[in-house]
Amino acid sequence: MSVAFMDKDFLLTTSIARTLYHTHAKQMPVIDYHCHIDPQQIAQDHVFENLTQAWLFGDHYKWRVMRANGIKERFITGDASDYEKFEAWAQTLPGLIGNPLYHWTHLELQRYFGIFEPLTPATCKSIWERTGKQLPHLSVREIIRRSRVKALCTTDDPADDLRWHQALQDDKDSPCLVLPAFRPDKAMNIEKPGFIKYLKALGDAAGIAICSLDTLEAALDKRLDYFIRMGCRAADHGLDYVMCALDGDANAILQKAIRGDGISRLEAEAFKTHLLCFLAQRYVQKGIVMQLHFGAVRNNNPTAYKTLGPDTGFDAIWGAPNTGAHLGALLGSMEDRGGLPKTILYSLNPTDNAQIAAMIGCFQTSEHKGKIQHGSAWWLDDSKTGMTEQIVNLASHSMLSHFIGMLTDSRSFLSYTRHEYFRRIVCNLVGSWVERGEYPLDMAFLGQMVKDISYYNAVRYFGLENSLD
Amino acid sequence: MSVAFMDKDFLLTTSIARTLYHTHAKQMPVIDYHCHIDPQQIAQDHVFENLTQAWLFGDHYKWRVMRANGIKERFITGDASDYEKFEAWAQTLPGLIGNPLYHWTHLELQRYFGIFEPLTPATCKSIWERTGKQLPHLSVREIIRRSRVKALCTTDDPADDLRWHQALQDDKDSPCLVLPAFRPDKAMNIEKPGFIKYLKALGDAAGIAICSLDTLEAALDKRLDYFIRMGCRAADHGLDYVMCALDGDANAILQKAIRGDGISRLEAEAFKTHLLCFLAQRYVQKGIVMQLHFGAVRNNNPTAYKTLGPDTGFDAIWGAPNTGAHLGALLGSMEDRGGLPKTILYSLNPTDNAQIAAMIGCFQTSEHKGKIQHGSAWWLDDSKTGMTEQIVNLASHSMLSHFIGMLTDSRSFLSYTRHEYFRRIVCNLVGSWVERGEYPLDMAFLGQMVKDISYYNAVRYFGLENSLD
Amino acid sequence: MSVAFMDKDFLLTTSIARTLYHTHAKQMPVIDYHCHIDPQQIAQDHVFENLTQAWLFGDHYKWRVMRANGIKERFITGDASDYEKFEAWAQTLPGLIGNPLYHWTHLELQRYFGIFEPLTPATCKSIWERTGKQLPHLSVREIIRRSRVKALCTTDDPADDLRWHQALQDDKDSPCLVLPAFRPDKAMNIEKPGFIKYLKALGDAAGIAICSLDTLEAALDKRLDYFIRMGCRAADHGLDYVMCALDGDANAILQKAIRGDGISRLEAEAFKTHLLCFLAQRYVQKGIVMQLHFGAVRNNNPTAYKTLGPDTGFDAIWGAPNTGAHLGALLGSMEDRGGLPKTILYSLNPTDNAQIAAMIGCFQTSEHKGKIQHGSAWWLDDSKTGMTEQIVNLASHSMLSHFIGMLTDSRSFLSYTRHEYFRRIVCNLVGSWVERGEYPLDMAFLGQMVKDISYYNAVRYFGLENSLD
Repeated sequence: MSVAFMDKDFLLTTSIARTLYHTHAKQMPVIDYHCHIDPQQIAQDHVFENLTQAWLFGDHYKWRVMRANGIKERFITGDASDYEKFEAWAQTLPGLIGNPLYHWTHLELQRYFGIFEPLTPATCKSIWERTGKQLPHLSVREIIRRSRVKALCTTDDPADDLRWHQALQDDKDSPCLVLPAFRPDKAMNIEKPGFIKYLKALGDAAGIAICSLDTLEAALDKRLDYFIRMGCRAADHGLDYVMCALDGDANAILQKAIRGDGISRLEAEAFKTHLLCFLAQRYVQKGIVMQLHFGAVRNNNPTAYKTLGPDTGFDAIWGAPNTGAHLGALLGSMEDRGGLPKTILYSLNPTDNAQIAAMIGCFQTSEHKGKIQHGSAWWLDDSKTGMTEQIVNLASHSMLSHFIGMLTDSRSFLSYTRHEYFRRIVCNLVGSWVERGEYPLDMAFLGQMVKDISYYNAVRYFGLENSLD
Repeated sequence: MSVAFMDKDFLLTTSIARTLYHTHAKQMPVIDYHCHIDPQQIAQDHVFENLTQAWLFGDHYKWRVMRANGIKERFITGDASDYEKFEAWAQTLPGLIGNPLYHWTHLELQRYFGIFEPLTPATCKSIWERTGKQLPHLSVREIIRRSRVKALCTTDDPADDLRWHQALQDDKDSPCLVLPAFRPDKAMNIEKPGFIKYLKALGDAAGIAICSLDTLEAALDKRLDYFIRMGCRAADHGLDYVMCALDGDANAILQKAIRGDGISRLEAEAFKTHLLCFLAQRYVQKGIVMQLHFGAVRNNNPTAYKTLGPDTGFDAIWGAPNTGAHLGALLGSMEDRGGLPKTILYSLNPTDNAQIAAMIGCFQTSEHKGKIQHGSAWWLDDSKTGMTEQIVNLASHSMLSHFIGMLTDSRSFLSYTRHEYFRRIVCNLVGSWVERGEYPLDMAFLGQMVKDISYYNAVRYFGLENSLD
Repeated sequence: MSVAFMDKDFLLTTSIARTLYHTHAKQMPVIDYHCHIDPQQIAQDHVFENLTQAWLFGDHYKWRVMRANGIKERFITGDASDYEKFEAWAQTLPGLIGNPLYHWTHLELQRYFGIFEPLTPATCKSIWERTGKQLPHLSVREIIRRSRVKALCTTDDPADDLRWHQALQDDKDSPCLVLPAFRPDKAMNIEKPGFIKYLKALGDAAGIAICSLDTLEAALDKRLDYFIRMGCRAADHGLDYVMCALDGDANAILQKAIRGDGISRLEAEAFKTHLLCFLAQRYVQKGIVMQLHFGAVRNNNPTAYKTLGPDTGFDAIWGAPNTGAHLGALLGSMEDRGGLPKTILYSLNPTDNAQIAAMIGCFQTSEHKGKIQHGSAWWLDDSKTGMTEQIVNLASHSMLSHFIGMLTDSRSFLSYTRHEYFRRIVCNLVGSWVERGEYPLDMAFLGQMVKDISYYNAVRYFGLENSLD
């Protein structure tokens, strides 16, 4: 007997799972502790004119599959009309069976627009019109409120003046806590074009002339303090892969870069390792959570890069040799120098799952339950299979009950439904274990656990207990 | 309640899956777009005397497991009688629970001989006799016709004169399109013994004296044109691993090899990268599909190699570090130089699945729906688990509906039932998604999709629309 | 309908699985062919005062998750009372849903103490008391007898005098065969501190002054002979990763180490490769099984290492690049020099599963059915998911029926229930295949197969047919 398409029991295959979700997980608020949304749009309470603007402007997840469907670039990132682009998306969607975009799209139609039929070429026009009527009443603040988001952490450059965060803090109608996160990738990417120009911008922001490692570190430190005054609870680092190059004089390498000399891969690794370890110590001292995102190989298509630039759907998965050993060396080195901050590790490569889940067990301490976290399946892995594998690995190697759970990592305001998707998957997995007799039917414990994973663990992890109403 | 052994609903666990398979997928013809069968046997309409000749002469998949069963080599590749070898296989088979050979064997007994009981030591004699009676009426052309194969692509060396392909094209009773595929591995393997001798053979075939990179490329180009005149739609490359060594003077390296000097690994990589990029451009210009097979570590057992030679069951899986990054660099370099041809990527290492499925999304264009393909699970991964994992990854990262589906990659004429095996797995997976409410019950769309994946996508991908009756 | 928590049909989801387990697998005795228990405790028939001593003294699996639960080190390895430590464990356990420790703990409570309720903070006191009453009657010999262990292989250093093995052989009340296993890691780890000191100890044990490769090999050979006289059937090697460095003068490298000069990584690899190949030949000549355990990255937390030392829960998974190729080269080299002994390969990295399962097929011979084995999921992978993946890979690439099955690899006498856990998983997997029509319902064959995998295959593999009553 087949069940209805994405009905209220979507992904919940046992009665225990249904109880866990509907009675416990569903009503929990959201802490979206890592995302890429633009705080300006919250500050100005942006309203989307149509679904193309909300869905297809900037969402390179969708662009990729539209290209796989043979859609011409004009209808993806080009000058076609908004409706033409929506039509191209509606033509693509039915073929995305088994792809998380299929579920995300329909969760968003259901939750934000009350539309329960599938988007197809046949329903395209009607759905365009119905959503078009509702969008004027669905500003980004309204989306945040309806999604019961209590706090969200954006992703910000240390040189950013955080003016929109300031505006939101001054605005008593702000829909939730909007906190900056410290992402100093540009200060670490010494081998990339634009590094020297960036040092200038960072120095200007900090009021420090950066001409050495000391001054670079002082500038970062000063900006971190500013971020913290603005509410920052977390830093984030995007690394191609995990490295630990402890030999090398970081200041000499920096001087070389300032002189305009070429930087070798080994030198870049040494510089980054040094700066990462320096910042880790600052995070410890200042109570900041450190996130490490690694495992992406970016901008693979040079032709597309020339016309479209970065972050346009041409990234893939880095197959790091030996994440385990490098991660052990890096975290061990940080631990040895000044202790580890609370740390969340995310790899884009699902074959790293077991290595990460095992490694976090080597650095747990009594400072916090679940101090070192294996981050939820991310970006290209953010799918039913990807999330299930991450959770199974985490549970098998560590302690699932302290997992801080989901984050959207999204550029889109409509993607808070990914928290619902995640919670359904967690409840279903836990329910299936209990149903098969692998765990006792202790609904008091299990109900609290899915609430913790949905919400309370993140509240405690980011120290938000006293900041939320 | 247990179901009957491999009955008509084998692998089809939901009613939707059963409808998809029996009503839609089952009756589709076969395009076997990559295999290793010998065209001479089709041209001469070979008849097997007994099942050992059809099954055990040349099938190193079976040889491996017979060795694992402690069978003496005499009964595998040695001078034992055909019946003794069959007995040894019948002794081995029952222990192969969970191995695809168990299913392949019984699908072949069922479909080609109408034998539905399991092959065991107890049924060995009877099955030998019953199949022996039928084999005289089961020539290779009869097998091809019964299997509804419409087209097949063999695997051929550029120096091959394709005489048997010619004979088949001149034969109006040819059972299907038999097309050559261009596999220039011997022209690329500059580090292997026999390379210089091969250059001579290739030069002779092309009528060009090969003494430089230019003449080598000219010879390959000329042979490619000849293959295309003979109907070739696809090239194929077997690489140990994906490489992209863009520095290095390919002609200088070739001259070094011609002089008899040793070639370093880096030089071999540079030479291969150059030639691969050169050929990719030719494939673009001439509308040829490029297949890359990688991830095998071959001839691991030196003792066996001395007595039995290559392709006798001593190959395994290469654990390539960073397939993602190398593949991105290689395909990006090709894209940059002259565009990418239609490309199919196959790795023998299942841990490459996510990396490949993500990477193809970086090179899709509007030239063809699903222009870059993640090839079906191959060789040692060609199992229920292996195929399922490839399909789930492909669906999750890309667009399943454009998948060109199955190929046998086989040396055996009886293995067309692997297409059935694959179709059952696809229908079951799709059916389970619909059954659980993860996709709408839209049988018109889904029926067409499984037909496309079974047949039409391959017809369109290889441009066979006008060549088939 | 949910089933009862860990009742008699735990993990057995089909009626075929239940029959296979209850009628066939369950009553089989145990051969625990690789473990780390202390033979002195058997010889002296040790009695544990309380469950903390049996469970938490030395079990770094539990220590890791207690740290993840934020338990202070005092209650893990420190000076807290035994009951306080037990309480800390009882507080941790409920959160370990999905972790094998949850099942191991309750299997042990059920089988050895007849306690069927879950251990929680609420039941902690009562379970402490009830187990405390039973422990005086549950000496290690009693545990071994109740677990129906017929033979177990400890893990021993070549310099060990095996006095406790001798004592057990002289004791006609010894509860089972207790055999030493030869683990010469300290003689191979030339790059580690303590190597020179160890050479002295080994030389003393052998009565040979070790000053060269010849004398080192002679000493090892002499100790191996002694171990064999003491009943040794297996050797074991712990390697960080699989290596095959065939160039290098092992004696020159050894002399360098003896002189106190630093050893490079490449030199260490060459030395180890040489010694491993030398020993493999000896194992062939003397009929010893060779076990290779690889894929652990150890002592990742330097702060913890300083206070707690090795084997205290700070190890993780090494992400070896290209296990396939290195394993092929190493085993091929051994095969070429003097043949391979019976070999069992275990990797801690689950992404090596397919590579190992494929590689063993390259070295099988008619000397023994299943001569080369893919070892059961080990240590951090010893979970329902980890074991299932290993078995599925093994079945898919090789011949499941010759699998020698489970070993505890444990330091704890109570962990023989892991054999039960494994058998349930095997029976369930096989049952599910039959239930779905993927294998015939041939209970005579299948019953024998699960008995073989549970017991008889190991008896034959280690040549114990004539040593057991």
